[in-house]
Amino acid sequence: MQNPTAAMLVIGDEILSGRTRDANMYHLAGQLTEHGIDLREVRVVSDDAAAIVSAVQALSAAYDSVFTSGGIGPTHDDITADCIAAAFSDHIDVRDDARALLQAHYDRNGQELNDARLRMARIPDSATLIDNPVSVAPGFTVQNVHVMAGVPSVFQAMFTSVLPTLTGGAPLLSQTLRIDLGEGDIAGPLGALADDFADLSIGSYPFQKDGKYGANIVIRGQDSARIDAAMVRLKAAFPV
Amino acid sequence: MQNPTAAMLVIGDEILSGRTRDANMYHLAGQLTEHGIDLREVRVVSDDAAAIVSAVQALSAAYDSVFTSGGIGPTHDDITADCIAAAFSDHIDVRDDARALLQAHYDRNGQELNDARLRMARIPDSATLIDNPVSVAPGFTVQNVHVMAGVPSVFQAMFTSVLPTLTGGAPLLSQTLRIDLGEGDIAGPLGALADDFADLSIGSYPFQKDGKYGANIVIRGQDSARIDAAMVRLKAAFPV
Repeated sequence: MQNPTAAMLVIGDEILSGRTRDANMYHLAGQLTEHGIDLREVRVVSDDAAAIVSAVQALSAAYDSVFTSGGIGPTHDDITADCIAAAFSDHIDVRDDARALLQAHYDRNGQELNDARLRMARIPDSATLIDNPVSVAPGFTVQNVHVMAGVPSVFQAMFTSVLPTLTGGAPLLSQTLRIDLGEGDIAGPLGALADDFADLSIGSYPFQKDGKYGANIVIRGQDSARIDAAMVRLKAAFPV
Repeated sequence: MQNPTAAMLVIGDEILSGRTRDANMYHLAGQLTEHGIDLREVRVVSDDAAAIVSAVQALSAAYDSVFTSGGIGPTHDDITADCIAAAFSDHIDVRDDARALLQAHYDRNGQELNDARLRMARIPDSATLIDNPVSVAPGFTVQNVHVMAGVPSVFQAMFTSVLPTLTGGAPLLSQTLRIDLGEGDIAGPLGALADDFADLSIGSYPFQKDGKYGANIVIRGQDSARIDAAMVRLKAAFPV
């Protein structure tokens, strides 16, 4: 059976300028794999409305679910919520449920819910809120798109909030064998193995360490007996 | 003047499964920014021919240059070269110039240039080779697409080989001010500043540290006097 598919859209100039090294993609990729959801594509775009809208539309149409990160704070460069509304021709304004969450939070902290903070209550009409236990200002889901914050601790907390609503698949199992040979000496037998186990995904990830070549061979699939069988063949082809 | 634009295509299941944390995107983003080339979009796709071909075509048409990473080794899952040829309707086979490089390399090391290694000499007819001082097997350029290896040390070496052929722009200058306030207290004055300095890019990158909120405000542009002027205004609005 085919697992559900997903895509991620990372929104933010700071990744594309090399200022910040993305952490959310790596986190999401690991989490989705663990829950049997097949992450097929990631796109990173800048804080540009046309780029965000067209990426959301393309990914939402092509995959079962989409996860976005970034651009939902209170500053002028936070335009994700408005772009999501535009992508789905939805109406957007400050919503009472989101405003109530923020009001209670800032009252508790003795801070003012000013115009800037109120921007974080701008939520498309059709959206469901995503709980943010870290800093309260919510994410939201419109159709199959889950809109989450860029700050890694908040992104991770929001993903945990969304997770129970997702339909997972069979977890992807994997086994890895490190072979201390150049890929050129591995490729022949490995290609034959991949042909014989076409139901599995067999990847070769080369590395260099201390001037020596090697590769990690990763065998992935949903059937542990098949993975075991492929691993036996692989080890026989490359005895230590 | 508008700087040249670029996109990156990262090819490989290992990033999407969360097995490997991408390093090449971060490296390329920093390098391009330093050389005045505006990285506008990154896509990550799996080792799937249709996905690679359509991403290459879309990015090549939309941006001045495209950099790919991954999928040019000798194993069965290395399909990038064939996909690039398909994307540009180019013919591909083992090419004499690439074969000669590999033959000399393996002769020197007393290794056999077997069928798997010879796959790395499969280069589209119209391509120019990219020098690989680390492990010899070349990358290549077809039209505006630079095809490079996924292993970070090799990717970086190949980028250094390509760099002199690229047309750079005015380097993007930036200054950063850290403000130890929540973004909600920063956003109002910051939005006014962004309106008054519409020729600059002003970004707010929030963080949490030891339970306190703050943000790094980054002002980017090509005119250092304008950046200085904006920074003076910003510091006046948020005195330490």
